[in-house]
Amino acid sequence: MVQQLVLLRHGESTWNKENRFTGWTDVDLSEGGVEQARHAGQLLKKHGYTFDVGFTSVLKRSIKTLHIVLEEMDMMWIPVQKSWRLNERFYGALQGLNKQETIEKYGEEQVHKWRRDPKEHPPAITEDDERFPGHYLRYNDLTYRELPLTENLSETMTRALPFWHESIVPALRQNQKVIICAHGNSLRALVQYIDNLSDEAVAQLDIPTATPWVYELDERLNQIRHYYLE
Amino acid sequence: MVQQLVLLRHGESTWNKENRFTGWTDVDLSEGGVEQARHAGQLLKKHGYTFDVGFTSVLKRSIKTLHIVLEEMDMMWIPVQKSWRLNERFYGALQGLNKQETIEKYGEEQVHKWRRDPKEHPPAITEDDERFPGHYLRYNDLTYRELPLTENLSETMTRALPFWHESIVPALRQNQKVIICAHGNSLRALVQYIDNLSDEAVAQLDIPTATPWVYELDERLNQIRHYYLE
Repeated sequence: MVQQLVLLRHGESTWNKENRFTGWTDVDLSEGGVEQARHAGQLLKKHGYTFDVGFTSVLKRSIKTLHIVLEEMDMMWIPVQKSWRLNERFYGALQGLNKQETIEKYGEEQVHKWRRDPKEHPPAITEDDERFPGHYLRYNDLTYRELPLTENLSETMTRALPFWHESIVPALRQNQKVIICAHGNSLRALVQYIDNLSDEAVAQLDIPTATPWVYELDERLNQIRHYYLE
Repeated sequence: MVQQLVLLRHGESTWNKENRFTGWTDVDLSEGGVEQARHAGQLLKKHGYTFDVGFTSVLKRSIKTLHIVLEEMDMMWIPVQKSWRLNERFYGALQGLNKQETIEKYGEEQVHKWRRDPKEHPPAITEDDERFPGHYLRYNDLTYRELPLTENLSETMTRALPFWHESIVPALRQNQKVIICAHGNSLRALVQYIDNLSDEAVAQLDIPTATPWVYELDERLNQIRHYYLE
């Protein structure tokens, strides 16, 4: 019995376009991003995919991508579960900064480390920063320890995994066909876990926007094969 | 402690516009319906409403209305639960027929009865009819007895109430702010129950599309007052 899991990174956001660090900032899809999401939905439909359940973050670029995909597939009626645990990595004080300007200020090597070294923390914000998630209604259910000031990729994985284990794994074990629509780094974190990748391997991993990434898993959720639909 | 419940009938659908009986046919919102939904969301936002959870049917005109409302309110991240139990009344063999043509064929009195008498059944379909819900993936979880061939308003209420009791009441009892986005007849059925209306009273009840209807309830979910936001 092969379990089918489709991973999907959201379509282009307005800040992807402006080349800014986004993190938990709740930016919208760009017009191009909406188009990308439509295309992803049409592609999944053309290849005969269906889903029993969808999972996404609490950020609108990801929620809207999933809604658009399901609308194109005529499957808006499936249950969709949202969790902050699938959010993009919390980029700390880098959130909102232009990536090029950040390189000019801190140097290419440091920025590359922040982006790719799973152990490297971007500069932290403080709790009085307007970017602190504790100020937002949608994070009311988080404990104090769960509210990030900065996150490295390992920490993104640590907070994503409880949702994987408690919500996604049970769906897969019930033979449900699953789509996860999330973010570059939360998907990298999940894939690092699923495929047991080294930090070096995950540092090389680049996930294109709005391109359905099909994972075929065995009964114990070990990867059999994976491929992009294009 | 006042419980806040907002009832919302979906925006105009393409078949509302063509004056056809819709029922469980999964027609889309018209352009005007999309605009109505946007307006409803802006109105709720302007009046300072927030929601902790949303409930809707498995029909896209209702799901999309809720999505658009939540997007306008910047609350796409709240949990949304969908159930066939909130679907429009199943209109049997009338589904797809033009209301004016139906009047010409069966007479105004009969059509009025089908539309408004809570005990009156529209003509039933048979299981080989393409409109039979048993043919659709989204109704796979329904038992044979739950698959309708026709429904009167009392039956719509009977199948809607388990969802009210099992999913919506617990949310209200936890002081969650609730929005239900559904259909003319599933909302009439809920309101008949909440307000303990007679069949005669509910026959008079007309719910406008995409107009937020605020219900204030006491701890035992008895209605204190209700009003439309306009």
